Amino acid sequence: MTRTLGVIGTGRIGRIHIANLASMPQVSLRKIADPRIEDCRDWAASIGLDGLTEEPEDILRDPAIDTVFICSPTESHARFITEAAAAGKNIFCEKPVDLDLGRASAAVEAARAAGVRLQIGFNRRFDHNFREIRESVQAGALGTLHLVRITSRDPEPPPADYVAGSGGIFLDMTIHDFDMARYLSGVEVESVYATGSCLVDPAIGRAGDVDTAVTVLSMEGGLKVIIDNSRQAVYGYDQRVEVFGAAGSLEAGNDRPNAVQRMTKEGTQLDGPLWFFLERYAQAYRDEVREFIDALDQDGSVPVSGADGVEALRIAIAATRSLREKRVVEMDEV
Amino acid sequence: MTRTLGVIGTGRIGRIHIANLASMPQVSLRKIADPRIEDCRDWAASIGLDGLTEEPEDILRDPAIDTVFICSPTESHARFITEAAAAGKNIFCEKPVDLDLGRASAAVEAARAAGVRLQIGFNRRFDHNFREIRESVQAGALGTLHLVRITSRDPEPPPADYVAGSGGIFLDMTIHDFDMARYLSGVEVESVYATGSCLVDPAIGRAGDVDTAVTVLSMEGGLKVIIDNSRQAVYGYDQRVEVFGAAGSLEAGNDRPNAVQRMTKEGTQLDGPLWFFLERYAQAYRDEVREFIDALDQDGSVPVSGADGVEALRIAIAATRSLREKRVVEMDEV
Amino acid sequence: MTRTLGVIGTGRIGRIHIANLASMPQVSLRKIADPRIEDCRDWAASIGLDGLTEEPEDILRDPAIDTVFICSPTESHARFITEAAAAGKNIFCEKPVDLDLGRASAAVEAARAAGVRLQIGFNRRFDHNFREIRESVQAGALGTLHLVRITSRDPEPPPADYVAGSGGIFLDMTIHDFDMARYLSGVEVESVYATGSCLVDPAIGRAGDVDTAVTVLSMEGGLKVIIDNSRQAVYGYDQRVEVFGAAGSLEAGNDRPNAVQRMTKEGTQLDGPLWFFLERYAQAYRDEVREFIDALDQDGSVPVSGADGVEALRIAIAATRSLREKRVVEMDEV
Amino acid sequence: MTRTLGVIGTGRIGRIHIANLASMPQVSLRKIADPRIEDCRDWAASIGLDGLTEEPEDILRDPAIDTVFICSPTESHARFITEAAAAGKNIFCEKPVDLDLGRASAAVEAARAAGVRLQIGFNRRFDHNFREIRESVQAGALGTLHLVRITSRDPEPPPADYVAGSGGIFLDMTIHDFDMARYLSGVEVESVYATGSCLVDPAIGRAGDVDTAVTVLSMEGGLKVIIDNSRQAVYGYDQRVEVFGAAGSLEAGNDRPNAVQRMTKEGTQLDGPLWFFLERYAQAYRDEVREFIDALDQDGSVPVSGADGVEALRIAIAATRSLREKRVVEMDEV
Repeated sequence: MTRTLGVIGTGRIGRIHIANLASMPQVSLRKIADPRIEDCRDWAASIGLDGLTEEPEDILRDPAIDTVFICSPTESHARFITEAAAAGKNIFCEKPVDLDLGRASAAVEAARAAGVRLQIGFNRRFDHNFREIRESVQAGALGTLHLVRITSRDPEPPPADYVAGSGGIFLDMTIHDFDMARYLSGVEVESVYATGSCLVDPAIGRAGDVDTAVTVLSMEGGLKVIIDNSRQAVYGYDQRVEVFGAAGSLEAGNDRPNAVQRMTKEGTQLDGPLWFFLERYAQAYRDEVREFIDALDQDGSVPVSGADGVEALRIAIAATRSLREKRVVEMDEV
Repeated sequence: MTRTLGVIGTGRIGRIHIANLASMPQVSLRKIADPRIEDCRDWAASIGLDGLTEEPEDILRDPAIDTVFICSPTESHARFITEAAAAGKNIFCEKPVDLDLGRASAAVEAARAAGVRLQIGFNRRFDHNFREIRESVQAGALGTLHLVRITSRDPEPPPADYVAGSGGIFLDMTIHDFDMARYLSGVEVESVYATGSCLVDPAIGRAGDVDTAVTVLSMEGGLKVIIDNSRQAVYGYDQRVEVFGAAGSLEAGNDRPNAVQRMTKEGTQLDGPLWFFLERYAQAYRDEVREFIDALDQDGSVPVSGADGVEALRIAIAATRSLREKRVVEMDEV
Repeated sequence: MTRTLGVIGTGRIGRIHIANLASMPQVSLRKIADPRIEDCRDWAASIGLDGLTEEPEDILRDPAIDTVFICSPTESHARFITEAAAAGKNIFCEKPVDLDLGRASAAVEAARAAGVRLQIGFNRRFDHNFREIRESVQAGALGTLHLVRITSRDPEPPPADYVAGSGGIFLDMTIHDFDMARYLSGVEVESVYATGSCLVDPAIGRAGDVDTAVTVLSMEGGLKVIIDNSRQAVYGYDQRVEVFGAAGSLEAGNDRPNAVQRMTKEGTQLDGPLWFFLERYAQAYRDEVREFIDALDQDGSVPVSGADGVEALRIAIAATRSLREKRVVEMDEV
Repeated sequence: MTRTLGVIGTGRIGRIHIANLASMPQVSLRKIADPRIEDCRDWAASIGLDGLTEEPEDILRDPAIDTVFICSPTESHARFITEAAAAGKNIFCEKPVDLDLGRASAAVEAARAAGVRLQIGFNRRFDHNFREIRESVQAGALGTLHLVRITSRDPEPPPADYVAGSGGIFLDMTIHDFDMARYLSGVEVESVYATGSCLVDPAIGRAGDVDTAVTVLSMEGGLKVIIDNSRQAVYGYDQRVEVFGAAGSLEAGNDRPNAVQRMTKEGTQLDGPLWFFLERYAQAYRDEVREFIDALDQDGSVPVSGADGVEALRIAIAATRSLREKRVVEMDEV
């Protein structure tokens, strides 16, 4: 069936989803809302959209809209989830659900109680490389898992004032990797050790955060997960994982813009990784939305649940505490 | 401006172009024609198309249509080019223009005389890897060129009855590589040596063709180009080039479906190349059409001209003669 | 000048050194000692050696011998170092110096006080890949260092009875990686977090050890080092490092037995890593001995000092404590 | 048994063999001869050699010497082979046997008639990569062979005066690749097409030679072999092959000095290929000599026969004729 949609928030992520939705024949994009909606009027026109509004309520109260995408700032996610659920609308919400565990859980519960579908925007689950590994792991290609290594580094640090409101690196950035650890392994975290340094930008340190971080997750069954993060990999967006088990190893390297190798007096050269998450995860962004829309027409559940969003948040909170208190934090403390 | 289009031929290639055109906002796809148009009625509906006809004339005579895509069998290309040119329509025509050099030249001349744009479907010029090399070569990264190596192998041989009407491997398959040689190097062919064997399928030999071929092109200035072809690379579509010059080498490997490396007791494994030309050149097919449409609105010429189509044909004819006569053929013989 | 040598211990490592020493023109290999010296009589003859004895004292008391290689079991290292130092002989000693920090320090001090040279057998410092990285780092290629990742996995677990006397994975295996962390970064460890599981062989767990381990080292200046170990990588000896800093990343992959790529219906295949440390570090073993012998004739110090041996031991002891007490251990606790 | 050897010629290749022979316990290196023997007196002393002479006859007439290595200039090869054979000595001779087919054949026949062993120095047959492919091909891993591609490029051109006496690129350089074609495929050449240009150094052209060459070999059974050569690959010694058949492809890349990957703002970088044949084929040079010596003690034949030397020479002569006459040359013309 055709879905009638509204999108709240037209920032960077909002526009990715809007562009992808606009190209889907089974979707009718009815309204997009943003306090600065005027800023995207030209862009919306260029892809044939009207239905622009400053008011999210115009979407939440529109009975013709059956599905809402929430791409607004984090602090409004829980409220919009709750309101959309109350209005009986299906929901796609960007990560994190909230910086507060109680509010996040309540919002997810509201959606569950209302019987609407809620998918959280952990886009990396849809990446061709990580999905290939997940499926091989699920098929038993590695036997029992022993180690997972996740490298996740941004090409450039965010502005320090963004950092100040982000909840810290673990809630803002590593939360994707915490979800990846659960996605790739299929098991839950038991304890967390996190440590970090401010080595990239002193302003990040002054904002109370670190820009270089290492997290070790001890998972059910003895599996260990290592995550390393940096806010600045000067060579581009670095997104690699390795899963190692009794039968071997699966390792996803970075995608590159081309397969050209250059040999000169200076050695052998390849292009670096795709520069930013928009390019690297372009296919993943398309697929997470497509699979969400497809799921709405089926009995089964969405591919990333509200509970997944809450669990990643719990791990991020534990990591933040571990960093501050310089100790291992058990998950049942959170 | 918005272009109003008709597409003649809805076979495999025709549908690729139709799907790509259907997603372009600056294009209005008015009619598609095919003798078996009923076979694609459902597919056309699924992407929102109507305007289906069995008659190419319905497109060629429609004054509202300003641009025609010719994706019909090779033997009709020259006629449709000539008719579309006479009707003042811009033309995108699949390769080869014709199997006969005289007819091909006349058709290209007709388009030129009519002042319409004509682009030939050498899609590989738009591949991200080959274009990267072309641009580096043009920028002087390699200095004087000394050697070009082109590997072009299909995953599976065509049916022998297709082979019988194809004009032979050089006109049907290597013609892409002949164009690639000119595209990558920027210079023209002076002489051709070609040889081949029937090693894949005896039926191809009975149809008078070879399925394994090697061609050496001697180019202006002394550059040598080596092309190797096979109708059957069991590991997938193998499309690689190397350009070697005074300052080094640029080499394009195959694209793979993912960047995952598997280490097991059996060794280290990667996925093979993308299996078929539809996947490998999906991006190239999108871009050749987009650039053609963009070119129509600009003063400049199209990125692949009718003359390019004729020149590749001349080389293919020379190669065919070389194979048969077991000797070097000078281009001015053709 | 020509060095006259004795080697104590003719086990696996002893024989590597003996074979390498036998091919060096500037070395005269006078005696080799082992309680089971009969077992290697044929092998010694095959490379032209005589001077076989069961008694290490025959070496330590031989005034003609100026340099001793100690390749006996760990528990005898400190004693032989002390005796050789007292006899004024230069010493090459396998790692670890001792499992006890006090005894190890005393032995190293004895060598220092005696004015003899003492090199510890951290062979990996001489590996072509790691040395390339070390030299680039020292030359400033990466700017400030932010992260180091070390993967060190054996192809097969040792027998459980070996494990029982080994001092545990951190003293037996990871000690090489602790030295590597110091070697690559040039800075010292401040605190250690280690965790592990027994996932490969339950007998290792019964022996009180783990076979899968993760260690995080917090280094001076905020650099974080991650080490992952496994006693069983079924695909072969896995020895990789990455050093990441302000200016980029240097990553050493595994060496392979050949550079052949196989493309078949099953995908693309490479040979796995070199199977065992003997092959992987064959060149490193040659070079560590050669550089030690060369150093004896020069004023400078040996490339791996006794202090390096003690420092790696301290880190290993801290890691062992961290594993047992499930907490971060500060280096000044050890 | 112990072999007593003499080596005639102490140039670059001669010294490689001498150094390798000096480290072999089953070899007694009795004499080395060179008109400029004084130039290598210090070097010989450094590896413990005496028995230096200016006169090859001192070797050929020494009854204690059972095996001779001929590493002198090409024009003396046939004569020394004939004399050594007459003296009943086994012979290792560098390639080419001679520039003249008649003289080469006569020399090989002399060795055969005398019942001595004769091995030709096609060192690349012993390279770990090419041998891996050869053995896989022989084991049937590729099924019927369809195509072979050989890339063989030197890092720097030789002096033009060397070129003048070399017999031309096909006799001097490509002769290795002609042997490789036979070695990898196991079948014989039927016809040859060769073409080339002078693009690297005009002095090479003035000396009557080309520095850039392409050869196509049509082999028994329809297999096609493509060889490309350049006298100057600025990035280093480029030695790659691909064998393609019914079941897939085996491709040997270049060996590199290390396995380090560097990621910086400038992209991803690897070291180039090993720079020169001395490094690239160090292992192959050791193994060809070791296998030759081993073969002398066994009933079987040597791994590269005199007939192999003659056959490669015939192909090189055919290629030279093809280049000059701009036509395909049948092997039975030579």
